[in-house]
Parts: sequence; C-alpha cells; structure tokens
Amino acid sequence: MTDQTCLKPGATIGMLGGGQLGRMMALEAARLGYHMHIYCPDEKSPAFEVAGKQTCAAYDDRAALEAFARDVDVITYEFENVPAETAEILNAITPVLPGAKALQTSQDRLVEKDFMTANGIAVAPYRAVDSLDDLQKALQDIGVPAVLKTRRFGYDGKGQVKIDDLRDAAEAYQAIGQAPAILEGFVPFTREVSIIAARGQQQDGEIAAYDLAENEHENHILKWTHVPARVEPSLNAKARKIAETILKKLDYIGVMGVEFFVVEQNGHTTLIVNEIAPRVHNSGHWTESACYCSQFAQHMRAIIGFHLGSTERHSNVVMENLIGEKDMDFTDMRQSLSYPGEFVHLYGKDEARPGRKMGHVNRLTPRTK
Amino acid sequence: MTDQTCLKPGATIGMLGGGQLGRMMALEAARLGYHMHIYCPDEKSPAFEVAGKQTCAAYDDRAALEAFARDVDVITYEFENVPAETAEILNAITPVLPGAKALQTSQDRLVEKDFMTANGIAVAPYRAVDSLDDLQKALQDIGVPAVLKTRRFGYDGKGQVKIDDLRDAAEAYQAIGQAPAILEGFVPFTREVSIIAARGQQQDGEIAAYDLAENEHENHILKWTHVPARVEPSLNAKARKIAETILKKLDYIGVMGVEFFVVEQNGHTTLIVNEIAPRVHNSGHWTESACYCSQFAQHMRAIIGFHLGSTERHSNVVMENLIGEKDMDFTDMRQSLSYPGEFVHLYGKDEARPGRKMGHVNRLTPRTK
Repeated sequence: MTDQTCLKPGATIGMLGGGQLGRMMALEAARLGYHMHIYCPDEKSPAFEVAGKQTCAAYDDRAALEAFARDVDVITYEFENVPAETAEILNAITPVLPGAKALQTSQDRLVEKDFMTANGIAVAPYRAVDSLDDLQKALQDIGVPAVLKTRRFGYDGKGQVKIDDLRDAAEAYQAIGQAPAILEGFVPFTREVSIIAARGQQQDGEIAAYDLAENEHENHILKWTHVPARVEPSLNAKARKIAETILKKLDYIGVMGVEFFVVEQNGHTTLIVNEIAPRVHNSGHWTESACYCSQFAQHMRAIIGFHLGSTERHSNVVMENLIGEKDMDFTDMRQSLSYPGEFVHLYGKDEARPGRKMGHVNRLTPRTK
Repeated sequence: MTDQTCLKPGATIGMLGGGQLGRMMALEAARLGYHMHIYCPDEKSPAFEVAGKQTCAAYDDRAALEAFARDVDVITYEFENVPAETAEILNAITPVLPGAKALQTSQDRLVEKDFMTANGIAVAPYRAVDSLDDLQKALQDIGVPAVLKTRRFGYDGKGQVKIDDLRDAAEAYQAIGQAPAILEGFVPFTREVSIIAARGQQQDGEIAAYDLAENEHENHILKWTHVPARVEPSLNAKARKIAETILKKLDYIGVMGVEFFVVEQNGHTTLIVNEIAPRVHNSGHWTESACYCSQFAQHMRAIIGFHLGSTERHSNVVMENLIGEKDMDFTDMRQSLSYPGEFVHLYGKDEARPGRKMGHVNRLTPRTK
C-alpha cells in the first residue's frame, strides 16, 4: 500500500465550469473544509454563489487561466469539452485532474471508440467519416439504421442524426455540418444503464464503483434513473470490470460515468459501451440521497488525494430530472417535498428555459436488493 | 390538514451568524435552490464563502439590520443569544424563525426552567439568585453539590461554577461576576442524552424527531455523540414527547436541540431536561451522515414552509467533534478518511485555537437497532 500526499485542509480547489455539477461539487468541497475557486465565462453561473472565489473569463483567456491556476492547488472540471490548450496552460502550473488522457479520449468519439476497442471493450460497430464518400462506404459496411455523430461537442442528442435509408446520406452529412464524424451502427438495446466509478490516488489507484443504474430518456435528455437497475444482477459485476479497465488504462483520477446499452445477443445479455464522461454524471445524482458518500463527495476525495468513500447504497431510489418548460412550478416542488423520503435538489437557476436542467428529485424506498 | 404557503424557489434566506452551523445550513439552502444572505460581525465568518451575499456588521447596527431584513424573505439564526432588540428590528420587516418566544425562553435559564416547570417537564431543582443573600438561601434549600449559573450567555461550561461547600457561596458569586443567576441542584445523572426535533408550518405544525443520541463531554465541550444511545429504548418515546410539548408550547418553527440528564430514581429511569437550544445543535451532527434528511436540511425545510423530511436513521453512528488544540493535523484528517464509512466535515476555519470547534467526523456502522 503506497500512500500519496493529500491536499491540506484549507487549500483551494479550482473548478472549470460553473453549472449545476460544479455547484454540487463545490458544496462537497466546502464540507471537507476546502476553499473553492470557480472559473466560468458565464456571469450567471449557478456555482458562483456557493464558492469563495470566482473568475468570470473565457476559456481561451491565457492571462485569466494562468492567474486562476496560480491561485489554486488542484484543478478539476465539470464538463469534458475543456479545450486541449486550456488544459495545457493550466496543467503547466497546477495539476488538472482527471488528466489530459481522459479529456483527449472522451472529447472525440472516434478516439474513444478506438480506445475501447484496443482494450477489448465492446462498442457499437463504427466507422470514421471525413467525407460523404466515407459515409457512403460506412453505410455499406454497417447498414441501416445507423447514427451519424460529430466526433466532438455532442451532448443530449445534439450533433447527431439517425439514418434509416442509404439514400439519406448526403442530407445527414449536411445536417451535422459536414464536421468530422463517425457512423455508428444502431444498437438494438433493451435498456440503457450506467455506472459511476472512481479511481483515487491512494493505494496505487484504488477503485470504487456504485451500483448499476438504469436510465430513461425523454427527448434525448435523461429523465429518470432507477436503482437497482431492472437487469440481471450479473451485469453489475460486468459493468464494474469494464469501468475498472477504463479507469486504469486512462490513469484516471476522479469520478467517471460510463453509459451502456444492454443488448440481448444469441440468448445471452451483454453490455456495450455507449460513451464515457470524465466527470460526475447526471445518471449518478441518485447517489446523493441513497448512498453514504455521493459521487460529488467521491470526486472531491479522489482529486484531493483522500481514500475513496463508501459507495454502498442504503436505499432503493428513483431520480427524476426536473427539466425546464415554463417557470419552475412552485406547487410541484412542494409536492415533491410532501413525502418524507423525497429529496429535491434545485440548482438555483433563475430562468427555466425549455430543456434546461433545473434540478432533480430523489425518491427513496427501502432497499430490496 | 392545512397547507401553508411556502417560500418560492429562488427566494433568499437570511441567516444571523456565520459560524459552522450557519455554514452547514447555507449548504442545505443551496441544495434547495435558495439564495443565502449571511449577517455576521466577524469578517472571517466561515459561512460567508458558501453564501451569495454577506453583511459584515454589528448586531446592533440598525441600518444594516434593516437593509438585511429588506433583502431577504425569511430570517433564521445559528445561535440563541440574538439580542431581543435585534430580533424586533428584523421581525418588523421580515419574519424571524424560530420566533421571539423561543429566543426569550432559551436565552434566560430562569425563564427556561420556569417554562418547563409550568408545562410539567422535569428539571433540576433551581432557585433564582439576584444577590449573595439569595444564593445562601438557595443553597440551604437545594443543598450541595449545586451549580451556580448566569441566567444569560452561558455555553460550553462558561458562566458557571460548581459549589461543593456552603462556605464557598461568596467566592462562587464573585466568580460569575455577580450577574443575575440561578442555582441548580446537582443532578446525579448516569448519562447525558439529547434529541433533535423539528416543527414545520404544514399540517398545523407537523413534528418530526430524530433518534435519541448519547453525548460525552470533555472540558465541558461535546466530544462524542453515540447513536443509538445506550439507554433503555422506552426513553426515546419519553424524550420525543417532551420535545413535542416544548415545540408546541413555544409555537416553534424549525429545528431544536433538547439536552437531558438520564437519572435513576427509586428504581426507574427518568429524563430531566438540562437545557434547550432553539437551533440546529452540535449533538445532531450525526444526522448529516446517518439519516436521510440531516438536521440542517430539516431546519431549512421547516422555515421555508415545506413538509418535514424523513428523520429515519439508516446506520449506527458515532460523531466525534474535532476540537482545536494545535494546527489541524493533516495526518489525522487523512486517517479519518481512511475507512469508507467515515465522513469528515471541516468548517473551513483557518486558525485552530484551543477549544475551537474545527470540524466533526461521523463514523458509520450497520444499523443494529
């Protein structure tokens, strides 16, 4: 057992991004007695008001980045699209965790799929697409239905288009702006599940994972997470093993979300990795109420260099995302707090734009398995 | 069932006091999507950095108090010694919860004891002491050992002196500065326990209580809390009933701590109220890790006007207070995080003065009863 040095109490954690994930991590950093410095270009960032320090500047503002890096003792982020140059500028002064390898891999769907394949992890059939010609060849190989996805900057269904007919190739390529892309074979999944796992700095990279969770989407946005997932229990161990491989191969420090498709193939059930997120993840919000140590606290423990916390689950739980449609309905919120086992978490966003994540509710019931 | 109006999401909660209790409540207010405005005369207040707004001013600064009250939608506090005039100035503009009755009663040991007695709640024998003559008569009535306590501003053993010999009366009266006082008979208790209870605004004053906790002190400062308490289970119901009476009779809204002595009398076990605190309480810090809804979240829910959260306990727990002696020992802290079921919470205080509460650790084990 090798013990690494940890960040001293009273040190400052730097966070790139000031959204709800940054906010929830800031709350956990505060519990551990650390100061928090949030860097975000949006002056209305919900994380700003729970942090002692804020820098409101662009992600390519070198002077602001350098001043930020000098002010903090470790840097982490709430979103995977941190530009490579931003990470380099920061990392030259103060360590950025999870590291560059995690960012490079998860920012580019092609690199990510190649990484999985190289490590023996099943993914959907895929081809690189850099031209319409590539796309047409890929469609021949993979067949339809298939999904054309930009290699970079896709989230919540953005930057992707489903192709049902070979003749729609040109239109689809136009629709994603002829950006560098990949074509993915459409996976006939029965359920979508995800696992939240963490790798720490103690004991040469200790690993801890939460129970497998089952996700339901609405309009490509996560709407519900159910734990336990309604899948055969053996998938839990399979998912853990895959997450462990990914964390190790990426020299990862922190919390990661791994999304899977559950596929019935030749009479048995398998897991296919959909994508990874090198950060705390929406499908792990249930851990806040149903586990001893939430994913937010876990990520802080990992980057600070403490031992990881217990990922044990004390309750069954259903997490519901509260998505903006109109102004947050106050009556609904009070209803969500009508039952002793319901826990609402709102992100302090003033404006409930359609599709915007405004908060979540965790509904607990006694643990059954 | 009468449903009251609740504070809308996005409203601002005002907090008097910026210490660790205010900090922990601010973190829970943020989870519920509320803004927080902290009022405290100490510019190094640990709660300041987790709140969106701060007012650093004296508690008798009328202009600052009025501006603060106008900026917020409800006001609460982390300490019971809010001056009556301060509360009046604020309450004329914005409701202060828990209300004036709770403050008046808990600020004065004599008023508190009279209140308990009037409501049939057992307390130690006591007499008002306004002169040395009073004290000598009280000692004749109550006998020794007895404890002379100032009526106001006592905490953590401050403002009190034990009297073992009738001849020490004058010296003791001198020691407490000849302040208005009470003499309390020394209670031969076997254990010290406390209950954290809450009264909300819904359903005509719904009440919820946590399990009875057992407390151990060192140098008059709480050092350990054990849950479950090592007492006969029937005391749980007795303590709840007493807390319920107190909450109702004070028209109380929010979380309250009630400290008891466990006394073996004539072959049966009884509870004697030591004192009450009209706020979240150090002996309730265990609820943060071992319950579904912590005392801090519960207090926020109560003053906002939501239904109360579940007080159910999912684990056994021992809470240890981390008291300042030297600089916080970093190694100790890492050790506290060495086990998956241990949760350290530090308050972000830079200077570890002797006797100062720097943080606490909750150690969880599976629930046994």
